[in-house]
Amino acid sequence: MNTMRFSSRVDVTEPNAISLAEARARAEGVNLMKLNDSNPTRHGLAPKAIPGVYEANPRGPRAAREALADFLGRDGSRTVDPDRLYLLSSTSQAYSWLIKLLCDAGDVVLSPKPGYPLIESIARLENVSAVEYSLLYDGSWMIDLAQVESLLDEYADRVRALVLINPNNPTGSYVKPGERQRLVGLCAERGVAMIADEVFFDYSLDPFDGNRRLAGERGALTFALDGFSKMLAAPHAKVGWIEVSGPEGDVAETMRRLDVIADDFLPMSDLIAGRIPDLLASADEQTARVRRRTRGNLARLRELLAQDDLGVTDVLRAEGGWNVLLRFPAAIDESDLVLLLIRRLRATAQPGFFFDMTANGYVAVSLLPEPAVFEEGMRRLLEAIRLELGCAAGPVG
Amino acid sequence: MNTMRFSSRVDVTEPNAISLAEARARAEGVNLMKLNDSNPTRHGLAPKAIPGVYEANPRGPRAAREALADFLGRDGSRTVDPDRLYLLSSTSQAYSWLIKLLCDAGDVVLSPKPGYPLIESIARLENVSAVEYSLLYDGSWMIDLAQVESLLDEYADRVRALVLINPNNPTGSYVKPGERQRLVGLCAERGVAMIADEVFFDYSLDPFDGNRRLAGERGALTFALDGFSKMLAAPHAKVGWIEVSGPEGDVAETMRRLDVIADDFLPMSDLIAGRIPDLLASADEQTARVRRRTRGNLARLRELLAQDDLGVTDVLRAEGGWNVLLRFPAAIDESDLVLLLIRRLRATAQPGFFFDMTANGYVAVSLLPEPAVFEEGMRRLLEAIRLELGCAAGPVG
Repeated sequence: MNTMRFSSRVDVTEPNAISLAEARARAEGVNLMKLNDSNPTRHGLAPKAIPGVYEANPRGPRAAREALADFLGRDGSRTVDPDRLYLLSSTSQAYSWLIKLLCDAGDVVLSPKPGYPLIESIARLENVSAVEYSLLYDGSWMIDLAQVESLLDEYADRVRALVLINPNNPTGSYVKPGERQRLVGLCAERGVAMIADEVFFDYSLDPFDGNRRLAGERGALTFALDGFSKMLAAPHAKVGWIEVSGPEGDVAETMRRLDVIADDFLPMSDLIAGRIPDLLASADEQTARVRRRTRGNLARLRELLAQDDLGVTDVLRAEGGWNVLLRFPAAIDESDLVLLLIRRLRATAQPGFFFDMTANGYVAVSLLPEPAVFEEGMRRLLEAIRLELGCAAGPVG
Repeated sequence: MNTMRFSSRVDVTEPNAISLAEARARAEGVNLMKLNDSNPTRHGLAPKAIPGVYEANPRGPRAAREALADFLGRDGSRTVDPDRLYLLSSTSQAYSWLIKLLCDAGDVVLSPKPGYPLIESIARLENVSAVEYSLLYDGSWMIDLAQVESLLDEYADRVRALVLINPNNPTGSYVKPGERQRLVGLCAERGVAMIADEVFFDYSLDPFDGNRRLAGERGALTFALDGFSKMLAAPHAKVGWIEVSGPEGDVAETMRRLDVIADDFLPMSDLIAGRIPDLLASADEQTARVRRRTRGNLARLRELLAQDDLGVTDVLRAEGGWNVLLRFPAAIDESDLVLLLIRRLRATAQPGFFFDMTANGYVAVSLLPEPAVFEEGMRRLLEAIRLELGCAAGPVG
């Protein structure tokens, strides 16, 4: 078994004599007067509008982490340690920190294809390559495990992390128990970390079939990402978090290093942290509300497709998430279809190539719109397909 | 004159046919229905606690930027364009983004010495080297311009940015008009960007002598950083910003690229942005309040030093900021002094080496504490100096 390797970006030189003496004094209960303390909130200088003392905790205010840990463990199936949580503003920021933690320039993270292009963009900003492994569709999506293994061989020591989106976007596919077992084994064996983006986890579409969160996985070093953007349908709140788990030794060294990164940025505002407990109180209701919307729209979409007299369009099996992939005859160029939508039908969509689908003939659509708006959008899309096929327009519903 | 060079981290490939068609439709006033819109706040799904539609503007919510621009131009001396502002959570995040924008792995930013170690740490996290240029003390601090020029030669194309802290921490020195003129010329000539960290700008200590902000400088590409952490004494608010200025062509290309970075992270929460106008209303009062504190403590420190019968300690000329440097006989090892403070006098401080001072014999102290606390701290420090010199303890005030 390989031990974890970390990047050389993080300065973890040993504490100097002064830091050690300070730590010893604190351990002895001495309350040291800090002559260099330039935190104005500890000197009675905070503005009235934001009272309180700023604790400058690299993982985020402890009270907010405790509320979050309680929330994450609310169903009793697992216990979440608030000290294993890092609060930050988004999963994008989490990816950025984790790549800094794990990867030197030129290193590699493996990311899913089809997938959302954000990861590639962030990796590039961090001087790292996102190399894609494939999800294959065969009535449902599965991870090409043989390919993951061969990429781990091909890039050997350069691969520092495996990104798993659970469920993936826009394929909607969850990581299956068998896949998980194999991937945890591969990662543990090779000292590769798992970055599990689980922001859509609670948005299952078709009946839930025993998928589990990777958060809390102990078999390999695991960073589980989640946040309010999807859980609360609140992308404007800017609340995200990393939950660290894995073999104990790896976790300790990981957090020592991640604390250095977090301490440089200290992203969590007390203006937000103070709202976290209340916002969590509405999380289950919000998730349920959005899930009703996505499930309702998916059901309506299937009705529309069943009623469509052309009968050439279907929706790929969607296990979870907010988006689905529509498949139409590959004789239609997906780019042409979207251009026609824009020019003639006052609508736009994302063609499959945007997500690195390997074949032509797909668009991704969001299940979030209000039902009447969603239905109108789908009618325009079916009309565009009809026009591209050169068929006369006709009723679709 | 060199043109600006940017990093290869930012993907600015030309927009594809679909983006162009969307832009054309928008320009013609067509309201496109976005079938892929997965922003839940545009579909009536935002939580009640955070109503409103999230605009996902890479530069931050426009209303908040307008309020900030008005505030920054309130004295009438300059006009700030809200479209030249990027809101984010801290100057640390600003440094991180700007290094990504400008530097490939192995590139160099020039940063001041003495200086705060955060910049070196952030540069390293971004795979970049912070190479130090010197400030020299001669009754007051000055930038070693000849050294800056020779470093620009030595590192030639690898230097992508010159960091100026105005005023610097902990030296307190502002960038002088003559220095500014020379540095703007050097940067413009060589296509090097200026990153001007002006968070302490309004905290002058000794009478203000015509120093000016670098924000708005047009002679070279300039990124001015500021935020609520110092301006409002609110480090827990997590509000910072970048103001972009410089030659028009450089600014346009810069913002096209910075928008890509900002769009990947979108750090500004509506929970914070909504508070910005109100918080700005208290900014002048907060700055004045903190300035009274720092000036009062500095005056009291000078009295204490004048009354000290040893008479071996003085305070370096401090033009601005929240910290000052105390100088004591170099026969005392500054590390030993701080260790004695910790072990015998229940206080701690930062020795000069922490800031890369080139000689021994300094500690930095904060001017923020409440006056009685500050005075007690300074008494302990003078007592430590007395003990280190082997003198009998005696009254210092």
